[in-house]
Amino acid sequence: MTSPLPEPIRLAVDCMGGDHGPSVTLPACRAFLDKHPGAELILVGKPEELTAAAAWPRCRIVAASEVVTMDDPVEVALRRKRDSSMRVTIQQLKADRDGNPAQAHACVSAGNTGALMAVARYVLKTLDGIDRPAIATVMPNQRGRFTTVLDLGANVDCTAEHLLQFAVMGSALVSAVEGVEEPSVGLLNIGEEAIKGSETIKQAAELLRTAGAAGRLNFFGNVEGNDIYKGTTDIVVCDGFVGNVMLKTSEGLATMIGAFIKEEFSRNLLTKAAAVLAMPVLKAFKHRVDHRRFNGAALLGLRGLVFKSHGSADAFAFEMALARAYDAARNRLLDRVHDRIVATLQARAGDAGDNAANSVAQAA
Amino acid sequence: MTSPLPEPIRLAVDCMGGDHGPSVTLPACRAFLDKHPGAELILVGKPEELTAAAAWPRCRIVAASEVVTMDDPVEVALRRKRDSSMRVTIQQLKADRDGNPAQAHACVSAGNTGALMAVARYVLKTLDGIDRPAIATVMPNQRGRFTTVLDLGANVDCTAEHLLQFAVMGSALVSAVEGVEEPSVGLLNIGEEAIKGSETIKQAAELLRTAGAAGRLNFFGNVEGNDIYKGTTDIVVCDGFVGNVMLKTSEGLATMIGAFIKEEFSRNLLTKAAAVLAMPVLKAFKHRVDHRRFNGAALLGLRGLVFKSHGSADAFAFEMALARAYDAARNRLLDRVHDRIVATLQARAGDAGDNAANSVAQAA
Repeated sequence: MTSPLPEPIRLAVDCMGGDHGPSVTLPACRAFLDKHPGAELILVGKPEELTAAAAWPRCRIVAASEVVTMDDPVEVALRRKRDSSMRVTIQQLKADRDGNPAQAHACVSAGNTGALMAVARYVLKTLDGIDRPAIATVMPNQRGRFTTVLDLGANVDCTAEHLLQFAVMGSALVSAVEGVEEPSVGLLNIGEEAIKGSETIKQAAELLRTAGAAGRLNFFGNVEGNDIYKGTTDIVVCDGFVGNVMLKTSEGLATMIGAFIKEEFSRNLLTKAAAVLAMPVLKAFKHRVDHRRFNGAALLGLRGLVFKSHGSADAFAFEMALARAYDAARNRLLDRVHDRIVATLQARAGDAGDNAANSVAQAA
Repeated sequence: MTSPLPEPIRLAVDCMGGDHGPSVTLPACRAFLDKHPGAELILVGKPEELTAAAAWPRCRIVAASEVVTMDDPVEVALRRKRDSSMRVTIQQLKADRDGNPAQAHACVSAGNTGALMAVARYVLKTLDGIDRPAIATVMPNQRGRFTTVLDLGANVDCTAEHLLQFAVMGSALVSAVEGVEEPSVGLLNIGEEAIKGSETIKQAAELLRTAGAAGRLNFFGNVEGNDIYKGTTDIVVCDGFVGNVMLKTSEGLATMIGAFIKEEFSRNLLTKAAAVLAMPVLKAFKHRVDHRRFNGAALLGLRGLVFKSHGSADAFAFEMALARAYDAARNRLLDRVHDRIVATLQARAGDAGDNAANSVAQAA
């Protein structure tokens, strides 16, 4: 399972998605192709807007006549725009009705998240054993590595069972993309003694503990919000509402801090001179917290590898999302998710069997 | 209602609470007294550790023989340590059995949050119309002002009704302490089209909208995590689980960014030289994001004004918490919460009456 997929790895790219469309996605694709000689791209979109790529090597264009806008409601993406670049891109991950194999190993879109999740779910369906797909992304941490967090907003009101599935899928993702075979999993909780978490969180902790003992999950225990940036665990699982607030709050705080630094350095001639002298340091700092480097969230739990780029991504950021999808496909993320889910389900079936056996023993 | 309370304003201070006890709380009290000639302090703790304050003006010592530690479970604080400095401090807010009035207008403790909330709730009880007290604090925002957020962890699994009560209490707090008479309230939600919030959030939005139309609430609508730091609304209300994750995540991110800046500036001789030159700018920046300035969370919804200092607060931070409690008492926060809750309840009773009237009209 762990030997990489043989090249070429093929990615389908929604070239029309995001705030900027082909003006960003095409340069990103070009840069990506140059750096990944074992990759091939399927560029999906309006052919007249993709002419620049017509003669590129390892690349072909697939026409789609419509575009899902960033404001389009899910219903429009799902029912009206049936020939959207988003949908056609996702269809490249599916075998066709005549039994021809899927055209691409993974796909990337910068289109709106709600629509992307809905269309992907409709076209691809979820894996056996997965109730709800989840959105996972990496956040930089103080140990100079990454913390993978899920769910980031695909699901609200998650049950304990869902949180267990997120933990299993997150483990598969980190083993595939970060190369950590037994990544540690933290359950996001709050720390006050009197009020340690909701009933759901308590049940989830129990499920995760059992799965850790029986299967392949490396469950660390409860973590708090600051542990994400401390890097206490490789993975943090949480309800999508909580994860989305966490992500947006972090973006807001980082933006505010950036604005404050800029303001302070441009206050007067003296501070501006200091800014010039401190420039290399400020640049190095900016690079470390540059969210563009972490672009590319995985939609996990589907029968196909779908990656979501930030809608406002520039060419550099979009290229990072392509690279992330490529790594995931190459390291067989889909098989890993499948295998881990199966192992967890079997371990749980075994538990149930044991319990049944115990009950029988007690009754006898 | 809006004329300030006549001086002297008396605060009770748990001098033993927090990570550092009297070595931090006493210097903070001294500095506070010097800056607030209209204030009096009741210093609660082990008399032998408070001798330094024995001769201070506008100040008296009340003995308490026990201390609730930062690790003490709620049960210990509540049932075993009945003569703790925390409990005796809170008791200063209550009229005694002989009908003598309360000794203090507000109190401050840096003791552990779970214990403080439980003891305060037990000793003081909640206000009529409040199901659950909440914890509120301010976060700096990009507009150079503050966003007040509640609940920060006193309650998990909040109902829509609880969120409405938080909005009313938060409005009272901001009107008292920040001097904004009709502060705007945002309901923390997530932005994805397909999945806009849980059922509870949808119901809460409806309640807040109705209260906004009928009563004194200035309801803005839904906000997202980044709006806290943008300063989109004066107040953001959320479930305590979400609020606590948001707060801890922010602390973690700020710490990481601070560490990164420090690392980059101390990388080599050149960057160290740049740090010296940029020092005034870095200091100005640090001051703006210095969380010590925002220390002092309000426990709202109780029959008494209880403020919670960060456990690790230094003397400067603890003094800020004292100042915040003083402002709240001086501006009659308790009356404001009471009046707003009554107004909201009356407006809702009116609604119910209207509905009844409508039903009768329809039936006729």
